[in-house]
Amino acid sequence: MTNLKAKLDETRTLVDTHLNTLLPLPSGKECRVVEAMRYSILGGGKALRPFLILTVSDMLGIHKNNALQVACALEMVHTYSLIHDDLPAMDNDTLRRGKPTNHIQFDEATAILAGDALLTKAFEVLSMSQTHPDAVIRCKLISQLAKAGGTGGMIGGQMIDLIGEKTPLALDEIERMQALKTGALLRYACTAPAVMAQASGSVFKALETYAGAIGLMFQITDDILDVEGDSTIVGKTLGKDKKAQKSTFVSMLGIDTAKENVKNLAQKAENALTCFGSEADLLRQTVHFILTRNK
Amino acid sequence: MTNLKAKLDETRTLVDTHLNTLLPLPSGKECRVVEAMRYSILGGGKALRPFLILTVSDMLGIHKNNALQVACALEMVHTYSLIHDDLPAMDNDTLRRGKPTNHIQFDEATAILAGDALLTKAFEVLSMSQTHPDAVIRCKLISQLAKAGGTGGMIGGQMIDLIGEKTPLALDEIERMQALKTGALLRYACTAPAVMAQASGSVFKALETYAGAIGLMFQITDDILDVEGDSTIVGKTLGKDKKAQKSTFVSMLGIDTAKENVKNLAQKAENALTCFGSEADLLRQTVHFILTRNK
Repeated sequence: MTNLKAKLDETRTLVDTHLNTLLPLPSGKECRVVEAMRYSILGGGKALRPFLILTVSDMLGIHKNNALQVACALEMVHTYSLIHDDLPAMDNDTLRRGKPTNHIQFDEATAILAGDALLTKAFEVLSMSQTHPDAVIRCKLISQLAKAGGTGGMIGGQMIDLIGEKTPLALDEIERMQALKTGALLRYACTAPAVMAQASGSVFKALETYAGAIGLMFQITDDILDVEGDSTIVGKTLGKDKKAQKSTFVSMLGIDTAKENVKNLAQKAENALTCFGSEADLLRQTVHFILTRNK
Repeated sequence: MTNLKAKLDETRTLVDTHLNTLLPLPSGKECRVVEAMRYSILGGGKALRPFLILTVSDMLGIHKNNALQVACALEMVHTYSLIHDDLPAMDNDTLRRGKPTNHIQFDEATAILAGDALLTKAFEVLSMSQTHPDAVIRCKLISQLAKAGGTGGMIGGQMIDLIGEKTPLALDEIERMQALKTGALLRYACTAPAVMAQASGSVFKALETYAGAIGLMFQITDDILDVEGDSTIVGKTLGKDKKAQKSTFVSMLGIDTAKENVKNLAQKAENALTCFGSEADLLRQTVHFILTRNK
């Protein structure tokens, strides 16, 4: 477990260093938007998605520099989505990763533009020859990130989530919402290295199953933390779902069944990894990490 | 001139038909965001950018199907920027292309997501093999669109524009703002076909000069229309710049000098085309079209 914690910290440092070279430097009259991009993406968060990309890439023999490019692009898309989701018109959040949200620190217009700019930059990064020597693979990485982040993925999930604030969702709708909203990018994190490695269908499928299971685990534990967590540890506003009378896994299943489901999903995630040997140990530790997370 | 008007109408139809096949169909609980994307992009606007892509592509012998893909991707980026610029936190506009703006017709959250989704989709479209048989060229198209739309292009320009609402800009700052905010995408429209055709440096340069000149013409005539235009013809709220006490080309130069500048730029744009023959006649007509536009 110390191993995993150290790996996550190492990932954060690696990704921040690389992001620093990819992001523009604040200069000119427009520097405010660049500062806002850097404010939200550098130094914050668990870097779980980059960690998954680097770990699976390592398993599949992908060069670290290639993996870092994809990790940074995905972190840009993830961060843009947080900035936009926190806006007053969306979740209206003031605290994120223990800091004021982007629109609180800057302003709404700047936050919208900073999000747009991170999304735009992500695709530029993937198009670079440093990402993969084969341009066909780069186009595939771009296409799949666009799909994972689009209306058939993250944006579609966020739309359903917003609708769920007005009319409560059924359990299967919550599950679909999660699979799109957070699941799609996690799936990308685990499968993009397989695209880069041109791995076999069975490897791709195993990674997809693993990602689906930990994605759902992550969302259910999020819902549990919203009820039972400590906001000073979690680093964001809690109790919001209940306040908004939103259907969540916890409100639909009850907290005990929700916790039971998390355990079953942990088993499913581990089972998906049976085709790998010890090289997948960090992925196994990740399952345990989500199972026991308090932030 | 009738020729150009017919060509613009033809472009609108071609692009709408192709967009219709590229955009997702509204279905599922998330259909609202797809409806919002379609609401803003289909049937509206002059389609000037797609027209430039199709026209220059035709000049350079690019297959129409390839050109249409790039035209649609660029129209997606242009439309996303309009949706986000119209938001209450930005220009707070209620009328666009003669219709209620996206956030008025839907709501703010949906408008933010619809913009995000169009931006995301644009890169997916460029990554498709239908866009160009050579993946290296597709990656170049993606990289250059990301740069034109990013902090060193459109987003940077919009940031400067927003800053200009608080502290008036100097003339050279207005010029730089324009070159980034609207100039960068127009430059892309004229040069992306040269990327596709792997045209010579001199052809690229000529098209870039032409694009720079018509882009600036377009912005100055926009500022003139904001003062002298008829909102029922222009199809958007006018007189906003004066109301907001924003520095514009008209407020800095006076209306007569502004009009003089437009004429000089028209000459510059035409001069840039001397290396082309009659195949560039539509581009020449475009200069005249911007010179005399009333909407």
